[in-house]
Formats: sequence, structure tokens, C-alpha cells
Amino acid sequence: MLRARVGSVVESNRFQMFIVGVIVVNAITLGAETSTVLSAMFGPMLTVIDHLALAIFTVELAGRLYASGWKFFKDPWNVFDFVIVAIALIPAAGPLSVLRSLRILRALRLVAMVPSMRRVVTALVRSIPGLVSLSGLLLLLLYVGGVIASNLFGDTGDPRFTGLGPTLLTLFQITTGDGWSDVMRDLMEQKPLAWIFFLIYLMVGSFTMLNLFIAVVCSAMQEEITLPAPRAAVHDDLLLQEVRALRDEVRAMRSAA
Amino acid sequence: MLRARVGSVVESNRFQMFIVGVIVVNAITLGAETSTVLSAMFGPMLTVIDHLALAIFTVELAGRLYASGWKFFKDPWNVFDFVIVAIALIPAAGPLSVLRSLRILRALRLVAMVPSMRRVVTALVRSIPGLVSLSGLLLLLLYVGGVIASNLFGDTGDPRFTGLGPTLLTLFQITTGDGWSDVMRDLMEQKPLAWIFFLIYLMVGSFTMLNLFIAVVCSAMQEEITLPAPRAAVHDDLLLQEVRALRDEVRAMRSAA
Amino acid sequence: MLRARVGSVVESNRFQMFIVGVIVVNAITLGAETSTVLSAMFGPMLTVIDHLALAIFTVELAGRLYASGWKFFKDPWNVFDFVIVAIALIPAAGPLSVLRSLRILRALRLVAMVPSMRRVVTALVRSIPGLVSLSGLLLLLLYVGGVIASNLFGDTGDPRFTGLGPTLLTLFQITTGDGWSDVMRDLMEQKPLAWIFFLIYLMVGSFTMLNLFIAVVCSAMQEEITLPAPRAAVHDDLLLQEVRALRDEVRAMRSAA
Amino acid sequence: MLRARVGSVVESNRFQMFIVGVIVVNAITLGAETSTVLSAMFGPMLTVIDHLALAIFTVELAGRLYASGWKFFKDPWNVFDFVIVAIALIPAAGPLSVLRSLRILRALRLVAMVPSMRRVVTALVRSIPGLVSLSGLLLLLLYVGGVIASNLFGDTGDPRFTGLGPTLLTLFQITTGDGWSDVMRDLMEQKPLAWIFFLIYLMVGSFTMLNLFIAVVCSAMQEEITLPAPRAAVHDDLLLQEVRALRDEVRAMRSAA
Repeated sequence: MLRARVGSVVESNRFQMFIVGVIVVNAITLGAETSTVLSAMFGPMLTVIDHLALAIFTVELAGRLYASGWKFFKDPWNVFDFVIVAIALIPAAGPLSVLRSLRILRALRLVAMVPSMRRVVTALVRSIPGLVSLSGLLLLLLYVGGVIASNLFGDTGDPRFTGLGPTLLTLFQITTGDGWSDVMRDLMEQKPLAWIFFLIYLMVGSFTMLNLFIAVVCSAMQEEITLPAPRAAVHDDLLLQEVRALRDEVRAMRSAA
Repeated sequence: MLRARVGSVVESNRFQMFIVGVIVVNAITLGAETSTVLSAMFGPMLTVIDHLALAIFTVELAGRLYASGWKFFKDPWNVFDFVIVAIALIPAAGPLSVLRSLRILRALRLVAMVPSMRRVVTALVRSIPGLVSLSGLLLLLLYVGGVIASNLFGDTGDPRFTGLGPTLLTLFQITTGDGWSDVMRDLMEQKPLAWIFFLIYLMVGSFTMLNLFIAVVCSAMQEEITLPAPRAAVHDDLLLQEVRALRDEVRAMRSAA
Repeated sequence: MLRARVGSVVESNRFQMFIVGVIVVNAITLGAETSTVLSAMFGPMLTVIDHLALAIFTVELAGRLYASGWKFFKDPWNVFDFVIVAIALIPAAGPLSVLRSLRILRALRLVAMVPSMRRVVTALVRSIPGLVSLSGLLLLLLYVGGVIASNLFGDTGDPRFTGLGPTLLTLFQITTGDGWSDVMRDLMEQKPLAWIFFLIYLMVGSFTMLNLFIAVVCSAMQEEITLPAPRAAVHDDLLLQEVRALRDEVRAMRSAA
Repeated sequence: MLRARVGSVVESNRFQMFIVGVIVVNAITLGAETSTVLSAMFGPMLTVIDHLALAIFTVELAGRLYASGWKFFKDPWNVFDFVIVAIALIPAAGPLSVLRSLRILRALRLVAMVPSMRRVVTALVRSIPGLVSLSGLLLLLLYVGGVIASNLFGDTGDPRFTGLGPTLLTLFQITTGDGWSDVMRDLMEQKPLAWIFFLIYLMVGSFTMLNLFIAVVCSAMQEEITLPAPRAAVHDDLLLQEVRALRDEVRAMRSAA
């Protein structure tokens, strides 16, 4: 009884609108807190609103959890909501103080509440599995390139190539094409043949990345472009029906003869 | 009577050509005014031409408004023309002096006058509604990322991260991929773990932006690629007619038997 | 007689191979001339080869011109060859010395000689007419943006915004996304609201440019993707034939009855 | 006998899993060697593992070579494995010490072992032949542009344009769009008309490169998008069967009459 009643309250349109409102207000107050002026003026008020919003989210989540039981966690959007509220409930002190900055992630709950955004994100997430192989290949290329580069250029003293970590970061930067020529020219003062590595890596990396993009495009298109096909199929079915009706006509005629 | 006569003058080919000429001349004089040499030499003349052009535009607009009455504002191209002329008529003094710079927007009226450009812009504008959800998602990500970044990096004293406004601008810059590695490396001197934020933001942001681009591509393609389909349908109709004629033939035969 | 004979020589496979060889050798010698070491060592020889190559090209062109008469100029590839040889024959002294640098354009004749490249370039060129409207729109936006920017930022003393010419160049740079944030940040020290102009221009410009790219993609795709359609049509024709044959069968039966 | 037995061992699932394990372990140790801390602590051990891995790879390759005989080299993946192991067996001393850095290329053997990656790379490689003409065109444009640029700008003393080699590298950089405006502005201090060359080169180069990308996209799409077509063909076949069955019916009726 209570379970169903809580469920109907929590799922009602009004309540959902209220939650959307709380999310928006909370996003604004968290944004206001980043301003030194505003947080000096309204600091305590902003903190109160923030705690209130968290309390409302917690109660709402508890309600939905109570209403649906364990199958609550079957919907990934619910898991998303749960994690975001859970992060906010962890006492963010000492080394965990970075979690305080993540409170704004609650604003992402808007995505789950607005149907059109929800559909867009679902489409984005659904295109990820098709990208696993290509991403794996890119990571492998990055690792192989990183080991080669830190072997070849590690002794130049360039901070961008000392150790595997910075080298991987630098290679990622090169793959995005941001300032790769500066990196290369700096290296070439000590290693005049560095351009060979850069050209090969840039070509192989960009070519793979381009294909990753194409895979995203293709998966997105197949959803869009296969839509008109059914209409044609319907037309074909009409034709098929017509031919079958004709066959029945002929058969009837034959048995009459 | 007068109304129809004004309308036929205003819509005549000759008058339209004349207006295109005035737009082009005015665009050139406004360009010439930016040159200190030219505006020193021909300054007064340029101002006269500019005023004359504005007068012609005002008369033309008044004529079109008089000819079509209130339904004038139903065509968005007319609204566009109206706003551009209205901006020019506001006295541009004091704080509004920036409006003087916007006089050149009149050159955009060319778009409304040349049919091929008009079609292109109409196509561009029509693809915007399909992008609302993805743009909203991008703005939400930008805001969330901005609040996190200004919380995490606000205390470094980097002017690119002090306050929410500059942070948002910096994140937009990162999403376009322009010089993101410089921003990151500067930050990493104080916050060695800053790369985690940058990698996550760059990937999520670029992935969403890529999908925004794909949405534009898909909507543009659907207009282009659905064109050949009707031809096939016509062919199918031919087939269907043939089969139906055949059925009639058989039916006639049967009733004759 | 002579005309046909010259034509058959000039169009023979052997002669064409010879010309390809001359083009390649000439391209290499022109490349060698850019090296101070090589041009010091083999300078006179390189000049001799260059003159020889030009002589061969001139004779070949004269032969082809003689063989085909005035319709020679109907093929745009011939016009291209003619212009390139003509440029080389103009005495390149004084203000025309820049033409000496353009001698290497002869290497582009390779494109006309190798069929696969010729096909690629033909496809590229054929996609240009579809881009005229969008390019015109981009140029108009560039001009309007340039006049606004030089009005707004001309008084900052930034050399990138003094005068319409440099401003247009800077805006083109911003449209390609190269270092736009540096330009903006430099300006914002004097004009804190400059970001408004940059954001609007970047969005409108990139959106239009993206659509220009899409137009290229679409025109390229339509050639690739409409290819499989005919096969389906053939299949449909088969079906139509079958149905018509069936109708004849029925008609024959009816007349027999 | 022995040949078949070696073959069955080498191709067994278990053995393949073992080789994958060795590849991963070896990739990790080669990565660890780039860290001065780790190689100081575990240096000898890492070397031992590396030698062991190489020994295992050599034995495995010898086994597969023995099992399949000369047709081993018909599969390009086998050639790839062979080259990578062969590189590792060359004594990497003196001028060949760069080969030591290439040992990590063994990690790329993972691609050959994991089916999904293998498929992705096969698709990438298969799209290369279609790009030969466009790549050739790009290289030709690069060479022609390089000779022109080093003729025009070689005397400015800018190290990016002294000699054909650096000029080609700079033009490649411009084609990728990285920092082209810096290069141009530096040149324009001495050669105010340099922008003409840059605009032309950027447009022609980007347009060709864009078409190269489109060619990749098209070839990738044709594999993806031609998939739904057969299903329609099946449907058409159904219709054709139906019509033929109907014809047989009519024919039977006619002969019965």
C-alpha cells in the first residue's frame, strides 16, 4: 500500500517538476559559491540552500528506492542518481575535500529528468560499445609510441618526455594536433631526426582517430538512415498482398473450371 | 489601389536590383570608413552615401510594410530586414555608440535578396532545432565543468581560472582544442593532478561536440539523400498498376467463364 | 596528313611516357636548385636541364596545338598545360621575378598525365560549383565581421586589428581555430567585452564552415552511394517483365476461351 | 607427422592465450624500463624477462614457420610477426641502437592475436588502396608548395624555410593547421605579401585533405551501409517467386483448358 502510494507521489509530474526546480536552484547556488563576492555576501544562505537541496534529493531517492525495491538499481539512470547523491553524503574532509567540488555533478541529474536530453545521452552511450576495439587500438598505439618516445627522447632533458607518464600526455596532445610542431621543433634542436617519429606517429594516430570518429558517425547514421526503409517495406507488402490475392483468384477460377 | 501599386513597385525586379546595388555600395563605403587614409580623404562623401543608403532602405521598408500590412512580420526575412534598419535609426550616442559598428550588418540583407544564399541560410537555420538537445547538454557540461574547475584551480592565481566567467571561457577554449595543452601544463606546475580533469573534460566534451556535428551532418544528409527514393516509389507504383490490371483481366475472364 | 601524323605521335603511349619522365626529372632539378650546396655544385647543369625541359614542353604543346587546332582549348586540361608553359616563357626579370618560383607548377602537369590523379582532380573540381553559395556566405560573414572588428578593436593598437586587411586575415585565422584564444585574451586586456564578439563570430563562422564541409561530403557521397541503385532497378525490371509475361499469358488464354 | 603436431600445438587456444600473456608481460616490463626508478631497482630482472619473452617468441615463430612451411609468408599478419621478431634479434649496437627502442613494437602483436582488433586493423588497411591517388596528389602539392616557398621565403633567414627539407616540414604543419598563423605573421614582417601564398596553400591543401578524409569515410561507409540492402533483395526474391508460381498456375490452367 504505502509502497505504491510513495511510488505514485514520487513519479507524479508535479513532484518531478519540483525536483527539476531544486536541481536548477542548487546548480545556481553552487555556481554562486565560486564567486568570492557572492559567497562573502550570501555565504551562509548558499550553504543552507545547498544542505536543503541535498536533504530533498536524499528523501526523494529514499522514496524511489523504497517504492521500487531492489529493481531500482536495474535502471542505469537510477544508479547514476544514487552515486551522485552518495558522493555528496560522504564527509568531504581532509584528502577527500576534492569531493566537495564534485557536488555540482548533481546538476547532471537534469539530464535524467528532461526526456529529450535523456534520449540524446542514451544514444551517445549506446554508441560506445562499437568504439571499444578502436579505442583499445588507440591506447595500444599510445603506449607503444610512449615507450619508444621516452627511450628516444628521454635523455634530452625536455620535461615533456621525462618518464612514461609525461610522454604519454605529450603524445595524446600530439594526437589532438594541439601545438605538435612546437614540441617537435624543440626536440629537433637536440635530435635532428625527431621529425621521423613525429610524422609516423601523427599519421598513424590521426588515421586511427579519424576511423574512430567515422565509427561514431556510422553508428549514429544507421539509427537515422534506416528509418525510411520500413515505409518502402510496407509498400512492398502491399504489392505482395495484391499478387497473392491474384493467385487466389486464379486458383478459384481453376477449381471452378 | 495605392497599396497594390506600391507593392508591385517594391516587388519589381528592377527595384530589387537597385536595392542590391545600394546594399553593395553601402557595404563598400562602410568598409572604406575603417581605413584612416580613405576616411580622411573622402570622409564627408562616405557619410553622405551612408545616410542616403539608410534613407533608401527606410523608404523601401516603409513601402513594403505599407503594401503588405501586418502580415509583413510573418516572414522572418522581413523581420530581419526590419531589425537591421531599426538598429541604424536608433541615435547611436554615448553608451550606444557600439551600434554604429553594427551598421555593416545591413550587408547581410544581401543574403535575403540573393535566392541561392537565401536557400542556403534557410537550410542552415532549419537544422538548428535538431541541435537544441545536444547544445543544451554541451552548455550543461560546460557549466558543471566550469564550477568544478573554478573550485579546483581557483586558488592557483591563474587568471584563466579566477571566477566562473573566465573559467567558462577557458573551458570553451579547451573544447575547441585551441592551446589546451598550454593551459594544462601551466596548471600542472601547481596542481600536478590537473591532467585528470583535462583528459576527462576533453574526452566528454569532444565526444559530445562530435555528436553535435554528426547531428548537423545527418540532418543535412537526410534532405540530400532521401531525394532518389521517390523515383523508386514511382517504379513500384508502375508494378502495382500492372499487377492490378492483370487482376482485372483475370476477373473479367472468370466472370466470362 | 601532317596534322594527323603529328597527332598520332603526340598521343602515342611512348611519347606520353617520355613527357612524364621529363616532368619528373625537371621537378627534381627544380627541387635541387633550392639547395645552396647542390646549386653551387651542379648549378649550370641544372639550368641546362631546365631549359631543355622547357624546350621539350614547348615543342610538345605546339605539336598538340597543331594537331587539334582551336578545339585544343576546349579541354580544360589543355588550357592548364598551356598556361603553365606560357608562364615559363614570359621573361622573368624585375618585378616579374616571382614567376621564376612558379616554374615548379610544371610538376602539376603530372596530374594531367596520370589517369587516376586526373580522375581525382576532376571529381574535386566538379564539387566546387555546389560550394559557391556557401563560400559566398562565408566571405560575406568575413567582410561583415571584419568591418565590425576593425571598428570595435581598431583603436587598441593591436597590429592584428589595424585596418581592414589585417583584420580580415585575423578573422580567417579565428575561423580556422588556430590560436583564437591568444588573440582574444590579448584584446580583453583593453576591451573586456571582446569575448562576446569572439564567441558569436566563432559559432556562426564554424557553423557555416561545417556546413560547407558537409556540402563537400554530400556531393562526394552522392557519386559513391547512388551507384548501387541501378542494380536494384534491374531487379525490379526483371519483376516487371515477369508480370507482363504473365499478363500476356492470361490474355492469350482469354482470347482462346 | 611432427609438422602437423607442431601445428596443432601452436594453433591451440591455450598456447595462444599463453603468448598473449607473454606479450602483455613483456610490454609492461619494457614500459617499466623507461622509468629510472624502476629500472634501478629491478633492472636485471626486467632484462631477464625481456630475453625470456624474446626466446619464447622466437621458438613460437619457428614452430609456426615449421608447421606451415613457405606459405607461412602468404598471411601478412605472419610477415608482421616475423619482421618484429627479426628486428629484436639484430644485435642492436652502435648506429643500430635505435632498434632497441623498437622492441616495444612487439606489443603490437596483440593486435594480431585479438580477433576484434585484427578485424579493425584489417578494415583500416583495406581502405588504404583507395587513398593512394589522393595521397599522391597531396604529396605532389606539398612538393610544389615546398619548392615555391623555399624560393620565395628562403632568403628571410627563417629557419623554418631554409632548405627544402625544413620547408616541407613547415608546409605539412600548415596543412594540419597547427600554428600556421604564427608562421605567416613572422614571415610577413619581411615579406608583406606572404599571406597570398599562405591563403592559397591552406585552401588547396585543406580542400584536398578534406577530400582524403571523405574518401576514408566513404570507403568505411560502403561496408557498413550496403549491409541492409540484401534483406530488401530477399524480399524482392519472395515477390518474384510468388509471381513465378502464379505464372505456373496460369500455364497449368491453360494447358488443362
